[in-house]
Amino acid sequence: MPSSPPHPAPAPDAGATVGDVGEAALIDRIRRRVPPAPDWVATGIGDDAAVVEPARGTLDVVTTDTLVEGIHFERSFVPAADLGHKTLAVNLSDLAAMGATPRVAVLSLVLPAGMATADLDSLVDGMLALATRHRVALVGGNITRSPGPLVLGMTAIGAVRRRRVLTRGGGRPGDELWVTGALGAATAGLAYLRQEPAGSAVGQADLAGCVERYRRPDPRVRIGMLLGRNRAASAAVDLSDGLGDGVRQLAQASGVGAVLDASAVPIDEGARRWFQTHDLDPLDTALAGGDDYELLVAAPRTHRRRLAAVSRLFRGVPITRIGLLTKDPRLLLRTDSGDRPLPEGYEHFTVR
Amino acid sequence: MPSSPPHPAPAPDAGATVGDVGEAALIDRIRRRVPPAPDWVATGIGDDAAVVEPARGTLDVVTTDTLVEGIHFERSFVPAADLGHKTLAVNLSDLAAMGATPRVAVLSLVLPAGMATADLDSLVDGMLALATRHRVALVGGNITRSPGPLVLGMTAIGAVRRRRVLTRGGGRPGDELWVTGALGAATAGLAYLRQEPAGSAVGQADLAGCVERYRRPDPRVRIGMLLGRNRAASAAVDLSDGLGDGVRQLAQASGVGAVLDASAVPIDEGARRWFQTHDLDPLDTALAGGDDYELLVAAPRTHRRRLAAVSRLFRGVPITRIGLLTKDPRLLLRTDSGDRPLPEGYEHFTVR
Repeated sequence: MPSSPPHPAPAPDAGATVGDVGEAALIDRIRRRVPPAPDWVATGIGDDAAVVEPARGTLDVVTTDTLVEGIHFERSFVPAADLGHKTLAVNLSDLAAMGATPRVAVLSLVLPAGMATADLDSLVDGMLALATRHRVALVGGNITRSPGPLVLGMTAIGAVRRRRVLTRGGGRPGDELWVTGALGAATAGLAYLRQEPAGSAVGQADLAGCVERYRRPDPRVRIGMLLGRNRAASAAVDLSDGLGDGVRQLAQASGVGAVLDASAVPIDEGARRWFQTHDLDPLDTALAGGDDYELLVAAPRTHRRRLAAVSRLFRGVPITRIGLLTKDPRLLLRTDSGDRPLPEGYEHFTVR
Repeated sequence: MPSSPPHPAPAPDAGATVGDVGEAALIDRIRRRVPPAPDWVATGIGDDAAVVEPARGTLDVVTTDTLVEGIHFERSFVPAADLGHKTLAVNLSDLAAMGATPRVAVLSLVLPAGMATADLDSLVDGMLALATRHRVALVGGNITRSPGPLVLGMTAIGAVRRRRVLTRGGGRPGDELWVTGALGAATAGLAYLRQEPAGSAVGQADLAGCVERYRRPDPRVRIGMLLGRNRAASAAVDLSDGLGDGVRQLAQASGVGAVLDASAVPIDEGARRWFQTHDLDPLDTALAGGDDYELLVAAPRTHRRRLAAVSRLFRGVPITRIGLLTKDPRLLLRTDSGDRPLPEGYEHFTVR
């Protein structure tokens, strides 16, 4: 009888889980993947805290965001590398909405013991790929066990000059509202993945774009920085919780109302088709859906040329005028059949 | 028949849970409890990110730490206010070990829907009481639902002058090792609470101190700041994972070994009695036990007077000499019966 072919030697930790490995070894594993820190990082990963030299003449901009398995994602339909990407992306989107240049991030990992170390590696690599693209240094973090879900927390710190900060509260009546990119893709992508976790139809171009947007959102880091630098905008907010929520947040903080032109709201074409074939109103669904990580920007009419200058630099990302801030405190959607109240955005918390 | 006495009117949200309330309302609820921010906070809670002016001539010191229900605590035996205290305390301890002055914190709350809003209020109040004591401003955060455990994440940022940073890696052979306070209390307190969650014997002075230390650790913020400022220390590390682990971390980062004098290690008296009555070796248990949040400090012999000057300012907190850094790379415990290897500290991750 012929001898069976020899098994290939397994990788040193093939099939290993994070529960097999000590905390110190996990930190080492991450540290080995992180590229050398820039010279303004005085102390990076591995001490009690990181030490970072602030950029000259700037303020620190600090944001924190957390992704929770079972609430924001399912591991069955978001690859580990994309989870790493997204954890950083959602934080960079907040910095972009402040007009800040991202600099450093710290990562909090709460890991189920059964998670494969290979998945942790992928997660870190996915995060670091985006970090490198935006010159963000991962300078520290914390690892602990989870008795339940995977929880990915991050705090990102950026820099902005004092008079370049884009808050939510700087909008004035008469300012025009603009939105980057197109809306609804992430909502359609998530809805599709919930129906078909295996992703059999992801090959379809429409849905592939939507799934990609849900899994790997592209934070508008450069657009936010430039809008702050050339003082094009009076206010900005990121649309992590949907356009409806973003308009409400910006208007409330600015002490104004708003009118959106329903026909002007840019909706992703693939998402529109998905919503239509599933008997969902494309506009309402796109308004309520979060996770696109586009920016909503208010800008005085007189700054249209500055806005256009930023827009010309990003030909792949349209910036579309969708409405107006108003003295009237109501939030309205202007449609062919008249005005109606703006629908609510996504509320992460309330159990529905 | 006499009418039954009228029921007292319930408080507006008596018995309410965080799942009954929207995310925006929860953020408002927290914001109302937070005292006015100092004037170097340009943008606080409620925007996409916080904006903070760095302290002139200092570096940013950034740390993040997360407490997970079922791993670091049980809600059954740590009151909500103490959870808030501890979430901040563990981060302040890391800043103290760098010689930094704490300034701001952002909070990440991952909340089970069934958590009482009253408990969330207590948690925030417990945190803010400690924040006020150490002049830390809570400037932002993030709230999301948890499908399982309560997860409390925080990032704290402090300030330190460049030449005052206390890293782990500055120790030299011949430097003396010092430890603040006494060890083992938190370990005994936790062991007691695990046996008797109802806390029937907490009235005993010994155990009350241990339980208090476990629930409400007192980070050595001022001692750390002063050790950095007067350049008494060459290196420092916080003992969140126990003295054994701390000595190992400091020695490894400094490229040296260490000898600890077993008889010199300060052990909390209440903890010692608890360990003895439970057939545990007090020294080994105290060495391995984390959660005391004391500091381990290396200092050249020639700096004894500087160390004494810091010590005199904190009469309630002894600073005890416990050993020496050595050229010999081994980590040894010197006892009456000879030298033996230093036991390992607590490893948060490995499943045991």
